[in-house]
Amino acid sequence: MTVKKANQMEALKAPYHLFLGCGDSELAIKTSRGIAQWNPDVCLGEVAGNSSPLTLGLPKLTIKEAADKGAKTFVLGLANAGGFVDPEWVPYIVEAIECGMDVASGLHRRLDEIPEIKRAAAKHNVKLHDVRHGCTDLKTGKGLKRSGKRILTVGTDCSVGKMYTTLAITNEMKERGFNVDFKATGQTGVLIAGSGICIDAVVADFISGGIEELCPDNDPDHWDVIEGQGSLFNPAFAGVSLGLLHGAQADILVMCMEAGRDHIKDLPHIPAPDLEDCINLNLKNASLTNANVKLGGISLNCRTITLEQGEKQRAEIEEKFGVPCFDPMITGVKSFVDNL
Amino acid sequence: MTVKKANQMEALKAPYHLFLGCGDSELAIKTSRGIAQWNPDVCLGEVAGNSSPLTLGLPKLTIKEAADKGAKTFVLGLANAGGFVDPEWVPYIVEAIECGMDVASGLHRRLDEIPEIKRAAAKHNVKLHDVRHGCTDLKTGKGLKRSGKRILTVGTDCSVGKMYTTLAITNEMKERGFNVDFKATGQTGVLIAGSGICIDAVVADFISGGIEELCPDNDPDHWDVIEGQGSLFNPAFAGVSLGLLHGAQADILVMCMEAGRDHIKDLPHIPAPDLEDCINLNLKNASLTNANVKLGGISLNCRTITLEQGEKQRAEIEEKFGVPCFDPMITGVKSFVDNL
Repeated sequence: MTVKKANQMEALKAPYHLFLGCGDSELAIKTSRGIAQWNPDVCLGEVAGNSSPLTLGLPKLTIKEAADKGAKTFVLGLANAGGFVDPEWVPYIVEAIECGMDVASGLHRRLDEIPEIKRAAAKHNVKLHDVRHGCTDLKTGKGLKRSGKRILTVGTDCSVGKMYTTLAITNEMKERGFNVDFKATGQTGVLIAGSGICIDAVVADFISGGIEELCPDNDPDHWDVIEGQGSLFNPAFAGVSLGLLHGAQADILVMCMEAGRDHIKDLPHIPAPDLEDCINLNLKNASLTNANVKLGGISLNCRTITLEQGEKQRAEIEEKFGVPCFDPMITGVKSFVDNL
Repeated sequence: MTVKKANQMEALKAPYHLFLGCGDSELAIKTSRGIAQWNPDVCLGEVAGNSSPLTLGLPKLTIKEAADKGAKTFVLGLANAGGFVDPEWVPYIVEAIECGMDVASGLHRRLDEIPEIKRAAAKHNVKLHDVRHGCTDLKTGKGLKRSGKRILTVGTDCSVGKMYTTLAITNEMKERGFNVDFKATGQTGVLIAGSGICIDAVVADFISGGIEELCPDNDPDHWDVIEGQGSLFNPAFAGVSLGLLHGAQADILVMCMEAGRDHIKDLPHIPAPDLEDCINLNLKNASLTNANVKLGGISLNCRTITLEQGEKQRAEIEEKFGVPCFDPMITGVKSFVDNL
C-alpha cells in the first residue's frame, strides 16, 4: 500500500509505532489490527500499557527503542466509548512526543484538548494528526466528469465489510499490475492508508466536494478504489452515503451486505433493505454524476452462516444479478477483478 | 411567527435592530429583507452606514435610539462574497454591543474572529450568535416514529422558493387556526424564526439527527412545517437533502421548482430533473422513515414566465399529479392548505 499524500489531510509519516492502550479489549484495538493487517510495511512495532495482554504480533518495542529504530508516528488506533484520550494513555503519548514522533489519532476528541500533549507537541515541534478533524478547507461538489476510473463500495448498512472489501479489491488489482489506489473515507481506512478524508466528520455542505477532492482527475488507466460509508437505507447516515456516491462518480459499484442481517445496525425498527431495491436506488442516484455506472459485484459477508449456506447464497445472488458474488474473507475477490 | 427556543441554538432575543451594511447592493440585504417581510413584529428598526441608500422601510433609528427603545439583538442579515465581517461594519457592531445588544450573524466567518468584537462582547457580557455555527452537540439520527405531523418542502434544485413556500404555508395555516410552527434549516430562515438549525453547516454524521432534534415529538394535532434545502438532484448538496428528508419523517412533501429552469444552479452540465422522477425519488427515500408519506402539493415558482404561461403550467401539473399546484407569490397557498 503506497502511503500517499491526500489533498487535504497531511500524509502520516512512516514507519508507525502502534499503541495498544492499557486495557484488554480486542474490540478496542480493531483499528490497530486493521493497520497491521493491511499495511504491515509501515508498522515498525507495538507497545501496550504494563498489564495489557493485547498484541498484534508485531515486534514489542518500548517507545525509546522504536524511536531509535526510526519510528516517525505514534499511532493511536484505539476506540473507547466517547472517543476520548484516556488519562492512562497520556504518559505514553508524551514520551513518544519527547522521542520526536508525530502522533496520529482516530479518536473523536482532539489530542490537543489535553494540555500536557499540546505543550509537549509545541516544545518538541511534532505534529498531532486528528484524522477525524483534518479536512477544513473543502469546496462544494461540482459533478464535473473526471478522467480515470473509479470503483466505490456501497452497502445495505454500516459494518457489513465495505472497508475490508475495498482493501481486498485494491490489493488484488495491485497484484495483477493495475494502476490502482485505495481511497480511505473513514478513520480506520485513513490510518491504514496514511491519508484520506473522514467523510462523516466534514461539514455537511462539503460531503460530495470532499470526495471529488479525494479522487480527482487521473490517468485514463488509473483506478481509485473508494471506501464507502453507511447506506442509503440507514437513516442515521444516508446523507453521507449519498454525498459520497455523487462525489465518487463511480464507474463500478460493489454492493456489500451481511448475510442474515434483518434490520439496520442499532435500529431494530428499520428493516434491512431488499438487495435488489438497494442496488437499484444506488445505481439511480449514482447515475446523476456518471450515467454509465454499473454494478460490478456483490460482496456477501458470510460470517454468521455456515460455509454451505454461504456457497448457496452466493450462487443464488450471482444467478439473480448476473455479477460475481464473493466473500473476501472466504473466496477472495478474484472473480470480481477477473470481470473488470 | 412565534420566536421559539430551538433545542440547540439559543433563541435570539427580540426585538431586533437590523443592520444593512454600508453598500448599495439589494442582493446583499436579501436576508434582512426576509426578516422584515416574514417576521415584522420583531423588527424595531433599521440602520445603514452613512452613504448607503438601502432601506427595508422600517423606522430608521441610530443604534443608540434603537437601544433606548429596547432593541435586544443587532442582526447582520448580510451577504458578501466570502461571508466575512467587513471591517467597515465593525464600529457599528461594537457600538451595538456597547449599548447592550446581542449580535446575530448569518455570515460564514465567525463574529469572534474580530478581536474588537470579541473583546467588546466579553466586556459588556452580550452574546454573539453565529447562526451557521450554533449546533455542535447533536446526536445521530434514529428514525424512531415521532408524534405530531410534519410537512417538508423539497425541491428540484436550490433557490427555487422552498423557504418562501414553507413560510407562506406556515402563515396560512396559522391564520386558519392550525397548531403550527415554522422550522428553519438555513441561515435566513433561522434569522427570521429566531431559532433553528443551519443544517448544511453541521458535521455530516448529524444531518438527520439534527433534524430529528429540530422537530421532535409533539401533540398529535401539531404541525411542523420544515424548510427544505438543496435537492436530491443537485450533486453538490444532495447529501444534506437526503439527511433532511430522513430526519424530517414528513407526512406530507411539497415539491418546489422554478418554471423554465433547464439545469441545476451553477452546474450547467447537470440537467434539471424531470418533475415526476424527482417526486418519485423523494417519496421513495422519505418512505424509509415514514411509510405513509404523501405528496401534498407542488409549488411552481413562475417568476420567469408570463402570468398566462404560469396558469397553464400549473393546470397541467395539477392534472398530471392530482395535487394542488400553486405559486405562493401569485396564487397564495390556499389550495394546498384546503387540501390538508
